[in-house]
Amino acid sequence: MPEIKHETFMKRCFNLAKRAEGFTNPNPMVGAVIVKDNKIISEGYHKQAGEKHAEIVAIEKAKGNLKSATLYVNLEPCSSFGRTPPCTEKIIKSGIKKVVIAMSDPNPAHNGKGIEILRKAGIEVIEGILKPEAEDLNRVFIKHITKKIPYITVKSAITLDGRISDYTGSSKWITSEGLRFYFHKELRSKVDAIVVGINTVLKDNPLLSARRSDNSYYKKQPVKIILDSKFRIPQDARLLREIKSDVIVVVGDDVTRTRKKKFLEAMGVKILPQPLKNGKINLPRLVKDLYKLGICHLLVEGGGKVISSFLEEKLADEIYLAYAPLIIGGRNLFYCGREMKLSRGIRVKNLSFKKFDNQIIIKGKLNYVYRNNKIPR
Amino acid sequence: MPEIKHETFMKRCFNLAKRAEGFTNPNPMVGAVIVKDNKIISEGYHKQAGEKHAEIVAIEKAKGNLKSATLYVNLEPCSSFGRTPPCTEKIIKSGIKKVVIAMSDPNPAHNGKGIEILRKAGIEVIEGILKPEAEDLNRVFIKHITKKIPYITVKSAITLDGRISDYTGSSKWITSEGLRFYFHKELRSKVDAIVVGINTVLKDNPLLSARRSDNSYYKKQPVKIILDSKFRIPQDARLLREIKSDVIVVVGDDVTRTRKKKFLEAMGVKILPQPLKNGKINLPRLVKDLYKLGICHLLVEGGGKVISSFLEEKLADEIYLAYAPLIIGGRNLFYCGREMKLSRGIRVKNLSFKKFDNQIIIKGKLNYVYRNNKIPR
Repeated sequence: MPEIKHETFMKRCFNLAKRAEGFTNPNPMVGAVIVKDNKIISEGYHKQAGEKHAEIVAIEKAKGNLKSATLYVNLEPCSSFGRTPPCTEKIIKSGIKKVVIAMSDPNPAHNGKGIEILRKAGIEVIEGILKPEAEDLNRVFIKHITKKIPYITVKSAITLDGRISDYTGSSKWITSEGLRFYFHKELRSKVDAIVVGINTVLKDNPLLSARRSDNSYYKKQPVKIILDSKFRIPQDARLLREIKSDVIVVVGDDVTRTRKKKFLEAMGVKILPQPLKNGKINLPRLVKDLYKLGICHLLVEGGGKVISSFLEEKLADEIYLAYAPLIIGGRNLFYCGREMKLSRGIRVKNLSFKKFDNQIIIKGKLNYVYRNNKIPR
Repeated sequence: MPEIKHETFMKRCFNLAKRAEGFTNPNPMVGAVIVKDNKIISEGYHKQAGEKHAEIVAIEKAKGNLKSATLYVNLEPCSSFGRTPPCTEKIIKSGIKKVVIAMSDPNPAHNGKGIEILRKAGIEVIEGILKPEAEDLNRVFIKHITKKIPYITVKSAITLDGRISDYTGSSKWITSEGLRFYFHKELRSKVDAIVVGINTVLKDNPLLSARRSDNSYYKKQPVKIILDSKFRIPQDARLLREIKSDVIVVVGDDVTRTRKKKFLEAMGVKILPQPLKNGKINLPRLVKDLYKLGICHLLVEGGGKVISSFLEEKLADEIYLAYAPLIIGGRNLFYCGREMKLSRGIRVKNLSFKKFDNQIIIKGKLNYVYRNNKIPR
């Protein structure tokens, strides 16, 4: 079988896996296809944590003898009991004699074990087909399972001269309505939580939910997290009134306003006290705590100071910048954090971009490592 | 003949006209084709000021009887004696009975006169084929002939967060070498002059010439203009040593350093004293003077303060921003001029963009007019 076929079937696995984007956390996105005589005879994907793994779905759907069939799956099959029995067992029992995978399980506790078990059972295992693409697909999973903190995406709408709002503080109309809903679909409906600073709440009074242009709600709604060291959140903030998902207000651990706390907690809001560092919330510590609360993918939406802090702390993994066709000047910069030498600046790799209405969206992965004083291209 | 044909032949005129891009100033770029039985039988373009107009070249090259032929030309033929005799006369004599033009002559002194003369001579004239494209092609000509100041293009290489250099002042490596030469080809080799501030000279010591990657020179070299109110230019600046084109140093009219002046003038440098306004060179006045010196297309290359001044004064017509995939922070902003409300910001229209190496070039036309408080899309 020529290698090109492996890639074709693996791409099908990716596409199946993506159907559950946003719903599998803390699990990875996985798709599987079973191929016999160069034809797909069965396929499956992992719908959400707790439900059947992709391989199991595909094997159970397959009819007939699988001895001459090949299983394609974008991630090494699991070999341990989690919420479901190990996939390796099911594969061995199915009679399949060949398994093609894109990448091994990034979880250090499992890495390679599933492959070993399959091989010991006499199954041929081919590894590494479209590995970079598979790693990109499951970048959220890889990050959180290895680092025990969420994958962090930063999104900001800015002017061509890097301003996030004008001198009056207004950021209305920086992005078109269409672009706002594009980001609801592309990001808000897929991440586990959105974080903003209290100033964004005080100034813009946003809902922070994931909606369509007809104002209907996406199935998955992000947890809303407000960084509010001094506990200034108004009790009538819109995001509190429209509770479609959990709200976490991160406050300094010196905050004592018990009555307001009780009032908000009675509304279902979680108050998360955090020790402050120089009067500010310690973000590296906070993201660990958020991960313990089940947040695998965190979206940082603003304002400039919050975004800058996540960048300065080298916590952000990827960035979406939507440039509006405007030059406005002023002090409200998208990045207002520590200044760096060119050779030591934060780099954005794997740059891609698209035009949306009259705006340009630039997307890339953040890279805080430098090896020499040249900017790599 | 279906209208689509008119457009096909007109596009050919544009392509012919563009062959002389950068060489026709103060004249427009003009191409002409003669069509008989739906086939091009002759074509021509205006090579440079003083040489034959496009229509003349095409008519002189054409063989046979032109009675049934149509002349396509992207600009209304001239009707007056300039450096060459009027084209209308030649067209009438040629026997051509139909002329298709894209736009009338924007020069208020000639506008419509050529068309009138042709029609009076019994020639059918069709106007307005691909007019917006024709106007874009000759935007430099339209601007300077109607406003008596140069068309002004701003170019800047910046980081994703809007910085033009890091806190040490270094801007080396913001753009890749490939991109620098792309701009030499795309802009420097086509404009009449480049202007930079004295700080750019002191800091980067640039050549400001138009070169290819093998360091060979383009045929057309821009005049180099330095804004240097206090006359600080070092006598050994590289741009003075490598004189392939005129150099103009714009100084305050209070500057007296006669010896340095004489020294530079002996090298062929033009010292242009200008009255200062709040200690700064008065740009609206300066550009008028530059136009009188024959500069029809001016490229503003930096630094941030010079670019910001041209934008603040609403003098810039179009902008090229090359974003490098970096975030660096600091005070050296691309735009550090007057702050504006979002609704009154400088708008960039006709946005286009392209990826170059790992950078993104955004190009658009600057628009300082606003009608309501919404940003148009």
